[in-house]
Amino acid sequence: MSVTKELAAYIVGSRPDHIPPDVRHEARRALLNYVGCAVGGSREQAVEIALRVLGPYSGERSARVLGREELLDPLYASLLNGISSHVLDYDDTTPSNYIHPTSPAASALVAYACTAPVTGADLLHALVLGFEVQSRIGDATYPAHYEAGWHSTGSIGVFGAAVAIGKLLALPLQNMIWAIGLAATQSAGLREMFGSMGKAFHPGRSAQSGYMGALLAQAGFTSGEYGIEGPRGFAPVTAKAFDLTRVTAGFGSDFGLRRNTYKPFPCGIVIHPTIDACIQIRRERQFSPADVQAVRLRVAPLVLDLCNKRTIDKGLEGKFSVYHGAAVGLLRGRAGIAEFTDAAVNDPDIKRVRETSTVAVADQNIAEDEAVAEVTLASGERVVKHVEHAIGNLARPMTDGELEEKFRDQASPALGAHRSNELIALCWRIDELADCRVLIEAATPSP
Amino acid sequence: MSVTKELAAYIVGSRPDHIPPDVRHEARRALLNYVGCAVGGSREQAVEIALRVLGPYSGERSARVLGREELLDPLYASLLNGISSHVLDYDDTTPSNYIHPTSPAASALVAYACTAPVTGADLLHALVLGFEVQSRIGDATYPAHYEAGWHSTGSIGVFGAAVAIGKLLALPLQNMIWAIGLAATQSAGLREMFGSMGKAFHPGRSAQSGYMGALLAQAGFTSGEYGIEGPRGFAPVTAKAFDLTRVTAGFGSDFGLRRNTYKPFPCGIVIHPTIDACIQIRRERQFSPADVQAVRLRVAPLVLDLCNKRTIDKGLEGKFSVYHGAAVGLLRGRAGIAEFTDAAVNDPDIKRVRETSTVAVADQNIAEDEAVAEVTLASGERVVKHVEHAIGNLARPMTDGELEEKFRDQASPALGAHRSNELIALCWRIDELADCRVLIEAATPSP
Repeated sequence: MSVTKELAAYIVGSRPDHIPPDVRHEARRALLNYVGCAVGGSREQAVEIALRVLGPYSGERSARVLGREELLDPLYASLLNGISSHVLDYDDTTPSNYIHPTSPAASALVAYACTAPVTGADLLHALVLGFEVQSRIGDATYPAHYEAGWHSTGSIGVFGAAVAIGKLLALPLQNMIWAIGLAATQSAGLREMFGSMGKAFHPGRSAQSGYMGALLAQAGFTSGEYGIEGPRGFAPVTAKAFDLTRVTAGFGSDFGLRRNTYKPFPCGIVIHPTIDACIQIRRERQFSPADVQAVRLRVAPLVLDLCNKRTIDKGLEGKFSVYHGAAVGLLRGRAGIAEFTDAAVNDPDIKRVRETSTVAVADQNIAEDEAVAEVTLASGERVVKHVEHAIGNLARPMTDGELEEKFRDQASPALGAHRSNELIALCWRIDELADCRVLIEAATPSP
Repeated sequence: MSVTKELAAYIVGSRPDHIPPDVRHEARRALLNYVGCAVGGSREQAVEIALRVLGPYSGERSARVLGREELLDPLYASLLNGISSHVLDYDDTTPSNYIHPTSPAASALVAYACTAPVTGADLLHALVLGFEVQSRIGDATYPAHYEAGWHSTGSIGVFGAAVAIGKLLALPLQNMIWAIGLAATQSAGLREMFGSMGKAFHPGRSAQSGYMGALLAQAGFTSGEYGIEGPRGFAPVTAKAFDLTRVTAGFGSDFGLRRNTYKPFPCGIVIHPTIDACIQIRRERQFSPADVQAVRLRVAPLVLDLCNKRTIDKGLEGKFSVYHGAAVGLLRGRAGIAEFTDAAVNDPDIKRVRETSTVAVADQNIAEDEAVAEVTLASGERVVKHVEHAIGNLARPMTDGELEEKFRDQASPALGAHRSNELIALCWRIDELADCRVLIEAATPSP
């Protein structure tokens, strides 16, 4: 059997009761974190522009854009949900392949669930499968696919959206194969967009494209049969090296959700260890901004590959600057949404530390969740902090309570504290919901 | 200056009177051929399915789907026009890079022109630029991009749609750069889809994506600044080797349209030399199907790379089978739309010649527009035909009259002979039209 067909057959055959309880709980955590990110990002400029530009092209307005009063057709709602949930770079990440897998799948699912009654159990199940397909294709093609320059949250996310919607549509095997093929042939998203609105566009567009692919496949719009593994298929075309046995091994027992992580800081995950180290230094010592004379960072080589800009003036760019991460950690002792605004990036103290006081050295012996920060203070004192596993990492996961706290920080400005707590409760008991619309409506601000 | 910026500056600065008369005439030929293909393909199953599935998601129905009575919003009309104009594999091709460049650009343009008054001169100018950008990016990345498995009509077509719409929107330089970036990050389309509806989906989706990218860019939705040449940009990510000087060399004097070709046969262009040779043999000799004992083809290696299937049962597959092309050429003496239907592919005589009597040998010494066909008849006679340049090729271009004849064959079933002739006349005098809608309405069947 072909890889694409085997994967499609797994999706088609999976039932909610096949998913182990711990995986279901992790899916609830992923959903909670997703909804918080989507609501928290729903007023960002990229969302406002996309809504203003594309709203007039919407079909029947039956689907909610999470966190907003506006309705769009479910395909455009998928796009907008994808942009808002990723725009703050605060959504979940699987460290084995650097995909942010919940955004593409969930953005399509919650849009679909506005247009037809979907039980919470079915939505959660489809989310598990959409996540799973991304994890498997991601692991099978990592690192070559990512290193080639693909932003896999877009280029692989599209598969997650397609199979998640395909599952809710109860596609038969042949149609699920075509949905995967139509996802493969819409796979897109370049890392060159990092630092621009184009990055958050990726999970949005992949949610919309995957959703559309599933709809077309349902109606018999054909694709190639070997979308993933064919000689001109996704894997050979986008990755120099890959291991397709990882797409199909351990169906039903191995779940990517068990290897998912949640971000404590709204920025590129590879700079989290640096931020963590700098916040710890700040908490241990009292010093003023002017006291910071020199900062020396030792980081994994990938960090400088991705986040090596220091001369920047936009909040979005700060999310991908290891120097900026170090500066806010040291000077503010935190790295929340407020630390990645245009204002924070242009704060003179932060700018000085970021642009003139900090050096970063790539070190092959430093792992990607590890960092060493060494700060020289005006007194001459040197403080060194070695973070072996950054907070939020698999070795130091955020607890359910920390996720709730993060959720409140993101959602409260839009929804208020009471409604945010209600929404948290609804996410935890999604399996009991006869119709997910109650949850989606709870994520909407009162007019 | 960066390649992306230089390209954007050329587009922004170009005026209709900068385009030499011969290029304008070639653009009219491309438009005529495009409209014929779109009308001719407008009742194909892929179009019917896409229209049925996506019609309900359309926004305000202000744009015509060419050849049909239905209206859609201009983004979905772009998609449908792209599918219909490519679904018969009858649209134009630039042999230097195998892109079918008119479909992605013109599909977006004629949709846009339904929603606002656009003069024929402006539409033709935007088409020249949309074509040009594809030619330049295509030539700069060929053959590596295509050989990697990308269907460049999708993956490069998106740039053509983005700049063509961007030109009609009169985008300033920065926004044109973003339109190019948003095109780059939506670049998609795998050759694995060949033989399925997914292939025709590519120019459609690229037209829609490019159009959407231009709209977003106009409103300030940012992309990376180096969409084409950045280290994680389009060229490095999708091609092992490329020469970006070809993107920018000879602006205003060198035009890709001068190297465009039109297909006499509705199938993969690489099998045209074989078909041409077989039709010539058929015209020179009288023989019955049973007389064909053995067929030996010598073809360029790429032919077998792309079109090596002989056991097939679908018309779409026949378009990419060199064996099928040889069989219909020999047995029917023609290769029109009727020769690439399911019925033709399953015709017992054609099937026998295709599946059991024909061998094809790849020969490094045979050029891609060349073929040698050798037929052994029941009498023992051997007939050899060496085609050095296939009809439709740059060395043997279709005349304006032949293009008109092809147009009538495609459009008459939908529009009738009189209306088809009117439409031909409108395409030739597009520069005089104050509003292109008169041409688009002429491509619509009377209710």
